[in-house]
Amino acid sequence: MSIQNQSVIVVKLGGTEGVDFSAICSDAVDIIKGGQKLVLVHGGSAEANALGEALGSPPKFIISPSGFSSRYTDRKTLEIFCMAVNGKINTLLTAQLQRMGVNAFGMSGVDGQLLWASRKEAIQSIENGKRKIIRDDFSGKIERVNTDLLLTLLENNYVPVVAPIALSPEGDPLNVDADRAAAMIAAALQADMLILLTAVPGLMSKYPDETSVIAYIAQAKLQQAMEAAQGRMKKKVLGAEEALQGGVKRVVIGDGRVEKPISKALAGKGTVIE
Amino acid sequence: MSIQNQSVIVVKLGGTEGVDFSAICSDAVDIIKGGQKLVLVHGGSAEANALGEALGSPPKFIISPSGFSSRYTDRKTLEIFCMAVNGKINTLLTAQLQRMGVNAFGMSGVDGQLLWASRKEAIQSIENGKRKIIRDDFSGKIERVNTDLLLTLLENNYVPVVAPIALSPEGDPLNVDADRAAAMIAAALQADMLILLTAVPGLMSKYPDETSVIAYIAQAKLQQAMEAAQGRMKKKVLGAEEALQGGVKRVVIGDGRVEKPISKALAGKGTVIE
Repeated sequence: MSIQNQSVIVVKLGGTEGVDFSAICSDAVDIIKGGQKLVLVHGGSAEANALGEALGSPPKFIISPSGFSSRYTDRKTLEIFCMAVNGKINTLLTAQLQRMGVNAFGMSGVDGQLLWASRKEAIQSIENGKRKIIRDDFSGKIERVNTDLLLTLLENNYVPVVAPIALSPEGDPLNVDADRAAAMIAAALQADMLILLTAVPGLMSKYPDETSVIAYIAQAKLQQAMEAAQGRMKKKVLGAEEALQGGVKRVVIGDGRVEKPISKALAGKGTVIE
Repeated sequence: MSIQNQSVIVVKLGGTEGVDFSAICSDAVDIIKGGQKLVLVHGGSAEANALGEALGSPPKFIISPSGFSSRYTDRKTLEIFCMAVNGKINTLLTAQLQRMGVNAFGMSGVDGQLLWASRKEAIQSIENGKRKIIRDDFSGKIERVNTDLLLTLLENNYVPVVAPIALSPEGDPLNVDADRAAAMIAAALQADMLILLTAVPGLMSKYPDETSVIAYIAQAKLQQAMEAAQGRMKKKVLGAEEALQGGVKRVVIGDGRVEKPISKALAGKGTVIE
């Protein structure tokens, strides 16, 4: 049986505190053992922040004119990001899945050119109301996914576990947004579903009121949803839009703090976007 | 053409200071572009030491009763090791090779069960002349290499770049010796040659007199060579022995500080063991 004929689901595990990696892993393992192909993409912001603090390089964030927040990644921060995200989280997550009996394959986008990204050469940042141009930033926007590589791994029953680091045309590792990386991977694989697990129960119309979760958003209404989104949630809505535009059938923003979080998202719990 | 019919050479790049990664990479790229299949294995002790110092966990070493030195790897040190070796060195080395036009694939032994190791449950250590038993150490001895995985990557023209971390049967990442990891990989692939690059010109009969390099050692004479070996060199001689016993045709301990270090080792410069 060729993988092309089989559905793939891409799951993004939040890197923020509160997300329960053990619950996600154990749910993922059950789902994989049931025959469903999964690709996991993880973040790592909390670990990268903690390592940066410990090494005397606390994180800095850039707010774009359109209100998106991203990590300011100079050369030193890039190395910290690689260590925390690819060295620690990816290795430990892969080992945890292996321990549970799944043949996980940890990698970053640098490995085998899994993720190509263009480097953001000049980033506009708003600081105290003023625009500033930042030029020494090693973050990027994914332009291409090595789909063949993922398919080869999936065909051989490996479970790809992807760290959000991409390769620039100049050969530099770049920090990329994990939600959007997951979206690009889901689109490349023409995944049936993209699940974005986070530390809230979904997109809320009245943030932070968790009872105000929006259960369903039609793709055509995503622009309105974007207006409701706060902070990091904006990236998830953007990722959802990119995934749907790329041919993914359904995106679910689900709660990563609960038991069986993937199964619940598969069952439509959270914010369903399609 | 199947890779089985093609020769593979395994190169271990030292993790010690003085070894010139750029020169090794540029030589590796020329050799790979010439059609020779290479697998690279790297160390990372200097980086792991530096990160440990910066995080307030300076490295500790264990001396075994037979005189071998190894890193004492408690849980915290294991995470530091994963960050420095898999997160920083592996990612940057892979990116550097990609920049030079080679499709490098960085991985640790945890990924896809590339390297299985048994954990050293109780290690004897000699401290101030007294024997001590250490039980919380996450280091291991490689028992099995996933040869199929390496062959699949090589067949698809990826160049494996391996960090010396293995997976225990309990699902823990383990710190493994990079020289011996390279030896096990070379044996698994039935490599034509294992090249161990280091910060000296070879095995010296009168260490540290660099003019005393032993040009040739027959496998039968390795026990004598082991007696001449000092410190870290003991592991290289042990790795050489394991590789030859495993079917590798030739091992070269070569100088990693010079231009074209792999080509020079291929030409027999350094200490040739066969």
